[in-house]
Amino acid sequence: MSVNPAPLEPAASPFRSTRTTIAERGQKRAALLLAAVRMFNERGFHATSLEDVATSLGVTKPVIYHHLGNKDQVLLECVTMGLGELQAAVEEARAGPGNGLDRLRAFLCRYAEVIMGEFGRCVIRTGDEVLSPAARTRFRALKREIDDALRGMIEEAVKDGSARAIDVRVTANAFAGALNWPARWYRPDGVLAPADMAAALVDILIAGVENRAGQ
Amino acid sequence: MSVNPAPLEPAASPFRSTRTTIAERGQKRAALLLAAVRMFNERGFHATSLEDVATSLGVTKPVIYHHLGNKDQVLLECVTMGLGELQAAVEEARAGPGNGLDRLRAFLCRYAEVIMGEFGRCVIRTGDEVLSPAARTRFRALKREIDDALRGMIEEAVKDGSARAIDVRVTANAFAGALNWPARWYRPDGVLAPADMAAALVDILIAGVENRAGQ
Repeated sequence: MSVNPAPLEPAASPFRSTRTTIAERGQKRAALLLAAVRMFNERGFHATSLEDVATSLGVTKPVIYHHLGNKDQVLLECVTMGLGELQAAVEEARAGPGNGLDRLRAFLCRYAEVIMGEFGRCVIRTGDEVLSPAARTRFRALKREIDDALRGMIEEAVKDGSARAIDVRVTANAFAGALNWPARWYRPDGVLAPADMAAALVDILIAGVENRAGQ
Repeated sequence: MSVNPAPLEPAASPFRSTRTTIAERGQKRAALLLAAVRMFNERGFHATSLEDVATSLGVTKPVIYHHLGNKDQVLLECVTMGLGELQAAVEEARAGPGNGLDRLRAFLCRYAEVIMGEFGRCVIRTGDEVLSPAARTRFRALKREIDDALRGMIEEAVKDGSARAIDVRVTANAFAGALNWPARWYRPDGVLAPADMAAALVDILIAGVENRAGQ
């Protein structure tokens, strides 16, 4: 040991500050959620055990219970994360520049990127039927908000003349399908990075609705 | 009882002809498959028991085992039926009139209609992970055939100039997503009948790829 020890660094104190504890809890929670969502996406909800999720992080199952709750609660947390990312995409696009079609395009690109991520993928891969009735109601309500926002943005593009006159409901369904589907086939190690794949998909969709006559 | 009984009708014979037996077996099999696929689509594969499927038709579980096999086999049979309908749509469209884009449009319309049906819906709602490894291999191979056919038709439309120059892979993925998605949301009791909904969806997609300059 040094005769002149360096002053103790804060982290070395045996008494952790409240702030450190909260930050650590958040990090642990995030790591557990990510491990869980990856396994749900890879194996499916039914084939995943929290035991395996815990093992993949070198912890025990009670650690997951402590931080996240039971398997149903973990799944609900995962899809809520994904829907939160989509909700953020809505708000970002609404505040964006340009005409209605520009904002729609920006939203669709971000939407597709989220869906290619782990939590977004989980939103799409999770059938209503695996959730508990209470969770299902919340899940559907959150999804409906995103659907409403998409329809709203298409409607605005039609109203300001940047999109041609189209059936808003049918268009929203076609777009959502085209951009939700990557949850089933997109691989991050593929030829196109998420942002590039998103832009390529959205280009085709936007070309189908843009109002060429009005430009 | 009548004193002059009518002559015995063939069906009343206690000795059934082989032809009748085969036809009846086919009808029973079809009825069992339809009851099963409806329940899979409604409740999900895991939440469906063959017991419930049997009860819905007023028969016992061994009757299903006898005609279709175990639950895994019943599911494989259901998705094989759906993929068979899609395969028929491929062949019909390939033999159709017009240019590449006309054939593509015809195929997409029929494809969407199949997906809105019970067996097509089951193809889409069934994740690879619920199938046994052997069944999964077959399921994937059959799906790949349909995907290849879709890409081939887009390629032909690009080649003959009826579609603009587009990335065939990305376009096929966008189209498949837009038309597979109704498996999750389409309700036959909705505003649009399957054929009309299919046409509305396909119009938007085709507008995104048609070669306006070349026409």
